Amino acid sequence: MAFAEFRPLDEKSLVEYIKYTPALASKLGDKFDDLKIREVGDGNLNFVFIVAGSGGSFVIKQALPYVRCIGESWPMTKERAYFEAVALKEQGHWCPGHVPEVYHFDRTMSLIGMRYLEPPHIILRKGLIAGIEYPLLAEHMSEFMARTLFCTSLLYHSTTEHKRAVAEFCGNVELCRLTEQVVFSDPYKVSKYNRWTSPYLDADAEAVREDNDLKLEIAELKSMFCERAQALIHGDLHTGSVMVTRDSTQVIDPEFAFYGPMGFDVGAFLGNLFLSFFSQDGHANQGNDRKAYKEWILQTTEETWNLFQQKFVNLWNEHKNGSGEAYLPAIYNNDVLLELVQRKFMKDLFHDSLGFGAAKMIRRIVGIAHVEDFESITDAGKRADCERRALNFARMLLKERQKFEGISEVVSLVRKLN
Amino acid sequence: MAFAEFRPLDEKSLVEYIKYTPALASKLGDKFDDLKIREVGDGNLNFVFIVAGSGGSFVIKQALPYVRCIGESWPMTKERAYFEAVALKEQGHWCPGHVPEVYHFDRTMSLIGMRYLEPPHIILRKGLIAGIEYPLLAEHMSEFMARTLFCTSLLYHSTTEHKRAVAEFCGNVELCRLTEQVVFSDPYKVSKYNRWTSPYLDADAEAVREDNDLKLEIAELKSMFCERAQALIHGDLHTGSVMVTRDSTQVIDPEFAFYGPMGFDVGAFLGNLFLSFFSQDGHANQGNDRKAYKEWILQTTEETWNLFQQKFVNLWNEHKNGSGEAYLPAIYNNDVLLELVQRKFMKDLFHDSLGFGAAKMIRRIVGIAHVEDFESITDAGKRADCERRALNFARMLLKERQKFEGISEVVSLVRKLN
Ligand SMILES: Nc1ncnc2c1ncn2[C@@H]1O[C@H](COP(=O)(O)OP(=O)(O)O)[C@@H](O)[C@H]1O
Ligand SMILES: Nc1ncnc2c1ncn2[C@@H]1O[C@H](COP(=O)(O)OP(=O)(O)O)[C@@H](O)[C@H]1O
Ligand SMILES: [Mg+2]
Ligand SMILES: [Mg+2]
Ligand SMILES: [Mg+2]
Ligand SMILES: [Mg+2]
Ligand SMILES: [Mg+2]
Repeated sequence: MAFAEFRPLDEKSLVEYIKYTPALASKLGDKFDDLKIREVGDGNLNFVFIVAGSGGSFVIKQALPYVRCIGESWPMTKERAYFEAVALKEQGHWCPGHVPEVYHFDRTMSLIGMRYLEPPHIILRKGLIAGIEYPLLAEHMSEFMARTLFCTSLLYHSTTEHKRAVAEFCGNVELCRLTEQVVFSDPYKVSKYNRWTSPYLDADAEAVREDNDLKLEIAELKSMFCERAQALIHGDLHTGSVMVTRDSTQVIDPEFAFYGPMGFDVGAFLGNLFLSFFSQDGHANQGNDRKAYKEWILQTTEETWNLFQQKFVNLWNEHKNGSGEAYLPAIYNNDVLLELVQRKFMKDLFHDSLGFGAAKMIRRIVGIAHVEDFESITDAGKRADCERRALNFARMLLKERQKFEGISEVVSLVRKLN
Repeated sequence: MAFAEFRPLDEKSLVEYIKYTPALASKLGDKFDDLKIREVGDGNLNFVFIVAGSGGSFVIKQALPYVRCIGESWPMTKERAYFEAVALKEQGHWCPGHVPEVYHFDRTMSLIGMRYLEPPHIILRKGLIAGIEYPLLAEHMSEFMARTLFCTSLLYHSTTEHKRAVAEFCGNVELCRLTEQVVFSDPYKVSKYNRWTSPYLDADAEAVREDNDLKLEIAELKSMFCERAQALIHGDLHTGSVMVTRDSTQVIDPEFAFYGPMGFDVGAFLGNLFLSFFSQDGHANQGNDRKAYKEWILQTTEETWNLFQQKFVNLWNEHKNGSGEAYLPAIYNNDVLLELVQRKFMKDLFHDSLGFGAAKMIRRIVGIAHVEDFESITDAGKRADCERRALNFARMLLKERQKFEGISEVVSLVRKLN
């Protein structure tokens, strides 16, 4: 058989693969003459091909046994494709409107076939850099997070289902370790992988490495990341894992998925909105001072959390007599008490989210993987100014997160800082 | 083959089983003529046989597919014997001085052969009821807890080892669910399984079920129990799972083992010492007012925590440059910082332990499974007085645990209450 063993595909061999795979061939109406295949992967890890012909289209994502942006010197299990496929299907099940449909998965080939998110879909991060407003973004992302996190937690399912799923995703350990390293460790120590806008931020990077209070807090978050199997989290929910149009919001790339703390996802998204905010001054020009856009970002951030909280609690109320085993109805049997536990739950989740969000910001400024929001600011001095403001805010947030009562306080502070 | 399928053994069929099992037969020097076999299981779940002859001895523990003290109407996987065997070996590896050696395990038969803890070993709970002092108890139990918890946590091993082990113990889900039910749920709701010294404690039991603040706190602990894979915990570390002589302390019965919060073990042990303390007035008589003994219990409780803390931190310091991935030496690279994180870690663990300890106390007074410390007080009014004091203390402790700075404060309060 042609593909009985793993092999990396290219534009040419992919045609053979598709012809040999009915689930994919049929998506093209079995028409191959006018097929166009283009590798478009701009992420750090994998290869992504757009396959389109007159009969239909799809995307093929293949994992190779190393980190794409580094090369074969940084091995990384290609089994991550398996966990991505399982997570895509699970998240698609709970939130079909915001996850591309999976057409095909081949474990041997570490290969996923899924819906092609056709133009005008673009990566959200690029839209934010371009200064485009997405009026439904907060609505859609809060929906995605509330539904996927709630429905994979003990608020919705039984301990038996939970432990089975937790055990399965323990298999995605290599990707978890990568996060541990690049988010929770490297930025706080000398590492050959770290980089920053030098020499401007040399002292700032050093200050991060010497901030004992910060290192105390990051330890707590790292433990939570490693130990707390609260829900199936996406694991990489930055603005580069979201594709958008004005009307559509689609979450891709959950290869880091595992059972972890909910706040890691919520924080990743909020933190990346803050990164975008702090980068805007670097993109301002005479035609557009980005003032209104910055305000839109802040409003969207606030709205995302508020809608998330609302939707999450609504799901809870809707399913409070369901099979979730965390809060049995016979115990949490009065409105006062239910509100009390929900308030406490959401407050803790809020603080977790702020902490993880801050950690994600810090690592994007002094760690290995930077974000295009800042990288595309060509003037290094200007870029460093933006980055420093973001970094200082994030350091404060990581250390003081417990003091914030609500998202509006955080957003007000950001508004003041910039 | 005679034992190719599971079957419950009795004194007679056990002889056949032993003859057919070289690992066991050899422990008896292959001498069967003077063999004495006695079923001695006094626990809630399983059957335990003491097998002794002139050539040697051992204990056989077999799990049946239901809860022994309830009967076949409460099914319970016999696979628990597998997890007990794995945990016994793991704990024995880290702390051989305080865990009986496993000679044999048969998964098909759900059967463990282990060292017979020969007389004068008795169950610690019985020793405490008899008013016997064990001068090495705090030293030994702190050693057992510090070593088994530290060495199975991310302070000692890598994320890769951790996730593999976590996944395996997710399989012990039925036992976890039993704990969820009897410790974290039933006492806080109406349940046919609950019982208490009625009518004396009717109002007290009802007050537990209607205490919103208490139910808020137990929810937090339950979540931690279900979600936080901090270390391989024993899972049932009460004073009935410890066998003692003046010189020896042996921890048995880890069938509830899984990767959970460390505080659940520490709390179980401390909480059961407090239960013993509060039961002592019920055992006082003209010959012995138990005053000195009560003081010994409090001193032992205090010493257990203090030694545990000391040993745990010593292990941490000893292994701070080892393969544990929680606190990398390149980050936690100065004494001030290391002390800071250790102090925070131990403070959190202390509060977790108080919370879980309190929960374990409450469930022994108003839940399904009671303790002999109180049950053996025949005068119901007297028993209820003892139980009420314990219950009130535990309710306070569960709600106010964060306010205690150290174990001496807790112990002082107990001294004052009784
Ligand atoms: N379903 C899709 N439809 C359209 N484009 C996609 C799709 N999936 C991925 N892409 C494109 O490929 C890029 C890389 O995909 P991603 O899943 O993020 O890979 P990586 O894991 O390497 O980061 C995305 O930024 C996007 O431009
Ligand atoms: N290794 C042993 N040596 C001596 N007696 C033992 C041993 N293991 C168990 N026992 C006796 O059997 C009783 C029940 O054992 P245990 O392991 O606690 O079973 P269960 O899981 O049913 O609670 C103990 O209380 C103790 O009296
Ligand atoms: Mg990506
Ligand atoms: Mg990716
Ligand atoms: Mg027992
Ligand atoms: Mg037991
Ligand atoms: Mg037992």
